[in-house]
Amino acid sequence: MRLSRQTFLLTKPVYIASTMSLAGPYEAKGNFKDFFDYVMEDDEFNEKSHELAEIKMQKYVVSKLLMKNNLEYKDIDLYLGGDLINQLTVTSFSAKETNIPYFGVYAACATFAESLIVGCNMLLNMDRVLCITSSHFATAERQYRFPLELGTQPTPASQWTITGSGALILDKTSNNCPKIVAYTIGKIVDLECTDVNNMGMAMAPGAADTIEQHLISRNQSAKDYDLIITGDLGRLGRDTLDYLLKEKNIVATNIINDCGAMIFNKKQKRGQGGSGAGCCSLVFCSYLYKLLLSKDIHRILFVPTGALLSKDSPLQGDTIPGIAHAIEIEV
Amino acid sequence: MRLSRQTFLLTKPVYIASTMSLAGPYEAKGNFKDFFDYVMEDDEFNEKSHELAEIKMQKYVVSKLLMKNNLEYKDIDLYLGGDLINQLTVTSFSAKETNIPYFGVYAACATFAESLIVGCNMLLNMDRVLCITSSHFATAERQYRFPLELGTQPTPASQWTITGSGALILDKTSNNCPKIVAYTIGKIVDLECTDVNNMGMAMAPGAADTIEQHLISRNQSAKDYDLIITGDLGRLGRDTLDYLLKEKNIVATNIINDCGAMIFNKKQKRGQGGSGAGCCSLVFCSYLYKLLLSKDIHRILFVPTGALLSKDSPLQGDTIPGIAHAIEIEV
Repeated sequence: MRLSRQTFLLTKPVYIASTMSLAGPYEAKGNFKDFFDYVMEDDEFNEKSHELAEIKMQKYVVSKLLMKNNLEYKDIDLYLGGDLINQLTVTSFSAKETNIPYFGVYAACATFAESLIVGCNMLLNMDRVLCITSSHFATAERQYRFPLELGTQPTPASQWTITGSGALILDKTSNNCPKIVAYTIGKIVDLECTDVNNMGMAMAPGAADTIEQHLISRNQSAKDYDLIITGDLGRLGRDTLDYLLKEKNIVATNIINDCGAMIFNKKQKRGQGGSGAGCCSLVFCSYLYKLLLSKDIHRILFVPTGALLSKDSPLQGDTIPGIAHAIEIEV
Repeated sequence: MRLSRQTFLLTKPVYIASTMSLAGPYEAKGNFKDFFDYVMEDDEFNEKSHELAEIKMQKYVVSKLLMKNNLEYKDIDLYLGGDLINQLTVTSFSAKETNIPYFGVYAACATFAESLIVGCNMLLNMDRVLCITSSHFATAERQYRFPLELGTQPTPASQWTITGSGALILDKTSNNCPKIVAYTIGKIVDLECTDVNNMGMAMAPGAADTIEQHLISRNQSAKDYDLIITGDLGRLGRDTLDYLLKEKNIVATNIINDCGAMIFNKKQKRGQGGSGAGCCSLVFCSYLYKLLLSKDIHRILFVPTGALLSKDSPLQGDTIPGIAHAIEIEV
């Protein structure tokens, strides 16, 4: 049911029946080390290229997720997801061997949110939809920045692409599980940020806009949520979002946080925190889902954020547009 | 309503209310010259880079489409589309200025089909969804192959990326217009083709699989269609598809054709024909839609095909997976 131009209330429930998470070794030393289902011993994952490692990560997460639920590939009706690598080859090559009907979606680090919203709608005629994203520090560095061998120093506003993947199954029947209640589809917001090493700044305005739209349309205040979790603004971006929300008279300082800002602990030198299409799926499918399952929290607004640039667009003088989609989940 | 694992029948009608097409100058000298709504005077479109030209193409098509229907940006509920450029920057930068809620989707040259199927499902809670794709010969050559200035010779099996864009509006009320009746979501099919200059060969097996699934699920034969139109296998790929379908006992020689194979005339030296995410949207939104509107044809199976590679994946030794989604449209 449509509440406003961007916000929709689900009239038929969509349940997040099960999740699976796989974290890189450095990610597994961070704040959520006790929540990840699986941890890679090393970043290469016994593969001969970074890209093959990331493909293996998605395949691993999907196979473990199905095994946990006693399902086979044929029991999944749609493989829905994406990644940061050009032409989504990581997701396509992962989906290939499952023989599951496949849709690639892209919203940069907000891809997981887009897959959830499209999944809710596709599920009307399906039984089970699999949503997945991944990212890998080395595939992202090679594609967007410099070869790792150069040892380039990050700037103070930088975030580090997360090595990790999270996947979940949406269905209509798991009524003891967390459910998606409503969602808001984001508009692209571009305040003409041009610093490719400050993604939080580029994405925070889009996140503020989407959160405001969602709260207004749902007639809610931030206090109606246990947590409003963006991904992945990093610490600087999260603080920017807090500032932007206050300008909109939305006081959420103790309620908002960010997957990228939370994932590493203070001793881990990772700039402003984590980023990448796999960051928010990894954190949601481990920490946040388990908090919901245990009923430590009851309602969250999950707001993945994406910076819609390529490696080339800033070099051609383009600004960095941001987008965020919001998903209201409760148990 | 679900007919089989991959095939779905629409129980609530989705109409293709209006289309708009913009062709490059060389495309406009081909077989469909009388069907395009607008033609670019030159490939650069008064922009200083190929990428800016392609962005302007999408913006132009969207603005002309809305103008033709007396609509404004606010009347469109979702901007749904994609392109071949890394991270879909062409589509994101085009959508940015419209302020329309935005989803990027990716299935290479089958992106238009994915946008139509996702659009049908999103439309359940919306009034109007805009589906769009584009491609540009020079942006694709620069990204996937070599700079134009090198003057590289194409191989005999090559196709040429189309400079063009097509967009359409899906709605639930235009009941005098062509409507989407059913669709089949493709699985990735990879017969381990490795020739990056023979995309038709890589994609034909996926097209054959999807067409077979659709006909079986709908209890139809090829003769139930006036046309089965793939996009973009090129001439060699179309003949390969014909051969593969015969192996499946589907005789469709005089019914199947391909957007890429049809777009150029015999005098135009363009290898096996056209390709690119904009090829099938351009041909559908001009020639095919007008044939349906005039009732020269009554039912088509529109089967865009995509090769899910990147520039890097073949260089790393990967094969070229193909996918095709089928959309049954009648008037």
